[in-house]
Amino acid sequence: MKALVFDGHLTLRSDYPTPVRPPGEALVRVRLAGICNTDLEIVRGYMGFKGVLGHEFVGEVVEADDPTWRGKRVVGEINCPCGTCELCQRGLGRHCPDRTVLGIQGRDGAFADFLLLPLKNLHAVPDSVPDEDAVFTELLAAAFEIPEQVSLRPSDRAAVLGDGKLGALVAQVLAQSGCDLVVVGLDEGKLARIRALGLAVARPEEIKARCMDLVVDATGSSRGFEGALRMLRPKGTLVLKSTVAERSQLHLAPLVVDEITVVGSRCGPFEPALRALERRAVRVGPFIEDRVPFDRAEAAFERASKPGSLKVLLDMRAGD
Amino acid sequence: MKALVFDGHLTLRSDYPTPVRPPGEALVRVRLAGICNTDLEIVRGYMGFKGVLGHEFVGEVVEADDPTWRGKRVVGEINCPCGTCELCQRGLGRHCPDRTVLGIQGRDGAFADFLLLPLKNLHAVPDSVPDEDAVFTELLAAAFEIPEQVSLRPSDRAAVLGDGKLGALVAQVLAQSGCDLVVVGLDEGKLARIRALGLAVARPEEIKARCMDLVVDATGSSRGFEGALRMLRPKGTLVLKSTVAERSQLHLAPLVVDEITVVGSRCGPFEPALRALERRAVRVGPFIEDRVPFDRAEAAFERASKPGSLKVLLDMRAGD
Repeated sequence: MKALVFDGHLTLRSDYPTPVRPPGEALVRVRLAGICNTDLEIVRGYMGFKGVLGHEFVGEVVEADDPTWRGKRVVGEINCPCGTCELCQRGLGRHCPDRTVLGIQGRDGAFADFLLLPLKNLHAVPDSVPDEDAVFTELLAAAFEIPEQVSLRPSDRAAVLGDGKLGALVAQVLAQSGCDLVVVGLDEGKLARIRALGLAVARPEEIKARCMDLVVDATGSSRGFEGALRMLRPKGTLVLKSTVAERSQLHLAPLVVDEITVVGSRCGPFEPALRALERRAVRVGPFIEDRVPFDRAEAAFERASKPGSLKVLLDMRAGD
Repeated sequence: MKALVFDGHLTLRSDYPTPVRPPGEALVRVRLAGICNTDLEIVRGYMGFKGVLGHEFVGEVVEADDPTWRGKRVVGEINCPCGTCELCQRGLGRHCPDRTVLGIQGRDGAFADFLLLPLKNLHAVPDSVPDEDAVFTELLAAAFEIPEQVSLRPSDRAAVLGDGKLGALVAQVLAQSGCDLVVVGLDEGKLARIRALGLAVARPEEIKARCMDLVVDATGSSRGFEGALRMLRPKGTLVLKSTVAERSQLHLAPLVVDEITVVGSRCGPFEPALRALERRAVRVGPFIEDRVPFDRAEAAFERASKPGSLKVLLDMRAGD
């Protein structure tokens, strides 16, 4: 099968072996996949992963233990926990130390004609949700992790730092609480896209100090942190949403003096993400940069790597 | 009046002017006061405060607008907010930027024959609570701030890092939830005192990695932080309880990957502290180092400064 493989170099291969399905797993034909910043970081040498890249996808089930799944259009949770360790037994499978992660850790990913995932990781996509929306499920689920961790009141003031894809999704999710929300960014074009969704936008210097109940740092850079602390009121909450590969540093004393809560936030629940896409409560279309045939995957990666790029999608069926 | 004054040097003066009570405030004759680490830090030159030191006290009201308070034995909240700014209006008076703080910021403190505090800061001490217990109210209130901020379930596993006075009070407060709690320290003598209260104790190396739901860092040093992160399970909560004057640094990436919550925690509510002292749910007696007549205040400070020292109390009435 065709697969985009990273082994120190990124290569689109046409002779990669099609995976053989073990019991409990499903063989999925990939329809559409999204390039994520984590993929770019792997290619830059972080994470130490080698194999087929990719973890944002929508596909259809080809083969599974339960034949009623065959032909179903699906998205899939990317963490595959061992199921038996103490953390798994405590319901913390997404943090299982022995887990594999699709296209990130110990398991080939979604930039291929086929992938394997445990059947229990799959979620059927409602018919009304097109592929171009469904492929955002994993990223949108990460946005829904925030209200899983932090209670947001309708009367709260919140700022989302970062005008990229993740920031735009986080903002749309949080705005549903009814809170007074502003997206803070530097890129006029991206801010305009977000403003067009009916959300308030601002540049950092327009936000006054110590006024926000909640600030989400989705800048993907270590620079967001100091700015976030400046905007937070005492006893406010800072959600760290991006895994910053470069090392950032934080002075602890201000956290104690102002009684700030800092919440690290990563992968999230798929069900609310699919529900939101189904009832069109979240718009993802404005954040698609391009849809590129899989044969041009290497060029698509270059495009996704450009600063300010929106979501680049790989179309595995183009040219079929 | 007698007062222990810091103006770059620490001096016990006998000619310090007795404060004149403005409307809204109460004049309190101090009975007993405790030396806190914050006092020691001020003397070492941090904080920039000059004036009468001290914020842990029990006293009796001499004069107030409401004459029914006269003669009452009281403790007092140390933060005196402006009452009109935005933070005060949002109920965050303890974080008012224009507040004064007894013996710490803009307001003479408790190491004197008399002090002033707004009447609304005072809490009457139940008759059954002796002075030696009541003088711990402010410190115990800081321990009660933790369950104000973090919900602790009876089935949770928790560790308190630090075998000092604050750690011992925090542990006694948290243990009341029914949780599986251990106090982690290095000083055999202090750990023995805590064990004698029926609490589990351990050395750091005895705690296995990634097992704790909640860890409270009450070490008063920057070294506690890395150890706390090691003990926390993914999605666990770390409470930072000590203001570390030296600068500590924290790498953000592990917080995101393990979805850790970090909660800064400072002053707390007096009412639950007084209730706990009244029903003898918390023991403070074992953590008193000595009770020293006020005339020997400078020697008491030296004693309190010794590493490993427990609480040194200043007795304003000794020799009266």
